[in-house]
Formats: sequence, structure tokens, C-alpha cells
Amino acid sequence: MKKRIVTIGREFGSGGRSVGRMVAQKLGVSFYDKELVRQISLKTGFHEDFIEQGEYAPIQSWMAYAFPASGVRNVMQGMSAEDFLWCMQCRVIRELAEREPCVIVGRCADYILRERMDCLNAFIHADMASRADRVVRLYGQAETSIERRLEDKDKKRRVYYKHYTGQEWGAAANYDVSLSTSALGLERCADIIVSLMQEELPEAGEIKGGAYDASN
Amino acid sequence: MKKRIVTIGREFGSGGRSVGRMVAQKLGVSFYDKELVRQISLKTGFHEDFIEQGEYAPIQSWMAYAFPASGVRNVMQGMSAEDFLWCMQCRVIRELAEREPCVIVGRCADYILRERMDCLNAFIHADMASRADRVVRLYGQAETSIERRLEDKDKKRRVYYKHYTGQEWGAAANYDVSLSTSALGLERCADIIVSLMQEELPEAGEIKGGAYDASN
Repeated sequence: MKKRIVTIGREFGSGGRSVGRMVAQKLGVSFYDKELVRQISLKTGFHEDFIEQGEYAPIQSWMAYAFPASGVRNVMQGMSAEDFLWCMQCRVIRELAEREPCVIVGRCADYILRERMDCLNAFIHADMASRADRVVRLYGQAETSIERRLEDKDKKRRVYYKHYTGQEWGAAANYDVSLSTSALGLERCADIIVSLMQEELPEAGEIKGGAYDASN
Repeated sequence: MKKRIVTIGREFGSGGRSVGRMVAQKLGVSFYDKELVRQISLKTGFHEDFIEQGEYAPIQSWMAYAFPASGVRNVMQGMSAEDFLWCMQCRVIRELAEREPCVIVGRCADYILRERMDCLNAFIHADMASRADRVVRLYGQAETSIERRLEDKDKKRRVYYKHYTGQEWGAAANYDVSLSTSALGLERCADIIVSLMQEELPEAGEIKGGAYDASN
């Protein structure tokens, strides 16, 4: 079957978002990244900055940073802000996937859409030196060392992903394809994903395409 | 630069070895799997079965299973059988990589050759149902459940890899490309690796191929 949706998980600074944008452009489909945050904001009443921070820091008291629109407390039904946001995020992502072919970056979309057979789940990463180089180019120097910032971001994404999915963030087994932008280049990573989206891929449950030759 | 060597790590039952053989055939280079075990056996005097088991069970007393050739104890220099085998394995793999372009399956070759810039490191995996299906076809039923056997093999490979490399087995970040044979099919996985081997790939240290567009 052909896939309709690409989800992209990524290490901070790996260029995963750029790869996602290239894939969406080449396929001529919608790209959900900031726009996804905006839609979740509309649904929840939370400020966009709060939602963006959320992906990095789930196990904190977020209320100090949140600016819920009037009435939002009434619909939270006793849930923590984090869990309410997660539920709304799941709903928005499922609705998007139902509505149109698209590329969705981050926010555990691979896990949220795990029941769908029409998703290609990709993970984008890069070596530490390349990520450091890229982040300094994009965001400039900061007071804390760049390696420290990267480790900190990775750790928070790992905790967030583990908390809500029960799975290990960045484990190859969670994705259909994982690619290093430092080893392959951004364009090549995008091209691999695009070509996979244009092919008939196997149905789940059986490994196809080679002889069963007593090797694994 | 073009890569000369492919290393393939793989989940048991994922078809990683078949993918490796296809890649070697398509590239016209040597394939080291059983042959690698034979060479390590020649170097160490250990029986081939013992060496093959080794990848699955490092933290056990192996001596009961080992059949060292006469004199081998003298060259072990006080090391455990496991550590001696690891040292010899490193030496054999480094010599192979120096000698000729090739595909090497398993045995932490990605880690052992980490200083070389001419290696493409791939990890091959598949979902549990597909691996179970494949293993039963290849090896038949056994007394223990198939899922139990797969988890057991995975666990032993994870422990072995962690023990000798300090890294997490199957973490996408350790590899240049990780592919699911159940999602993509064996041939398609092999084709992606072959095409990457035929291209000029970026040098390390910088993420190439896209605009620096304030996204990561």
C-alpha cells in the first residue's frame, strides 16, 4: 500500500524540521509544525509558547507558564494541564491525519497515529558535532555550553516521549526509517522519505522481498 | 566521499543478514558473516559454535563451551575468554576493513570501525509479528514461545553490545541509517543501502544540503 502521512521525530539540531518541510514541498502536501501548535492552541486555549515548551518539559508544574482562555478549566475535567494538553494534541493530530495527506513533525505523532496503516514514521538524527555546529549557526551562542544544551533538550524529549508513549525515544525499532543528516545530508534524507512515499510498501505482518534462506 | 564498507547490526529474525548478503551481491564485494566467524576461529582457536554463541551471551562463564586449541591459553595473557575473543574479533574486523571493501554483519563492527570515515553503518529491524513469522518459517516451532525467544535474543545482543561498546544497541543515533524490513521489504532496504554506497556522502561535522532556515 502507499502511505499518506509522514511523521518525523528528531533530535534537536539535527535538521529534522527542515527535512520535514522539504518532504512536504516535494510531495505537495501540508506541513504541520508551527501550524500544529497553533491548532492545539486554538483547541485548548493554551498559549503557543506553553505548548511548544511542553514537548521539552512534561514533568513540571506548567501552570505558572500557562495562560488558559476563560472557561478552559471547566473542560479539563480534573486532568493536569499536561494530560489535558496531551489529550487535545492526540485529537488534533488524529483529525489532521484523517483529513489530508501531510507531514507532521514532533509531538509523538508516530505513537498517536500507531493504529493507522498509512503512516511512514521517520526519525532524524545527527552526530553531536554537526548538531552543535547547526544550533550555533541558527540560534547563536548561549551562556551554557552547546553540548549541555543539546543533552538537555534530548533528555527532556526522551522523558516526554517515554512518559506519554511508554517507549524509548530514538530507538530505531519505533520507526520505519531512521536517517542521520550528518552522514547523508538533508536533501538525501528528504529524498529517501519522498521515494518511500511514492512506492507500494508491504502490508504489516510479514517480511517481504527476499527468499527465506535460513538466515535472519 | 564514497563509503567502502557496510556494517549491519540487526534484530534477530529481521532479515538483516539477508539484506547484508543482497547488498554485498549488488555491490560485488565480500560478505562477512559465517566467514567472519571462521576467521575469528582460526585466529583464536575457539570453536565456531562458541564464537557464534558469544554474540548472544557475553556475561556468562563460557569456558565450559570453549575448545581452545593447544597453546591458546598462553596468548590470552590473563584475559577472560570473552575479552580475549573480543580483542581478536576487533583485530580480524579491522584487518578485513583495511584489506577490501566488504559487508560485515553483526559483532559490533559499527563500533569497532568507528574511527574509519569510509563505513556506512546500518541497523535492520522489523516488528515483532513479522520477526516471529520469519523465525518460525526458518527455524520451526520450539518449546518456548516465539515472542519469548525473540525477546531473549534481543536482550542478549543488547547486553553484549552495551558491555563492549558502552552504547545502546538499536539506538538510531548509533547508525547512519536504520530500516524496518517489515515496513519496507528486504529488497527495498538493500536498495537504499546500495544507492547510498554509490553516492558521494558528506564529510562529518556539518549538516549539508539545506538552507539554514531557523529550524532544526
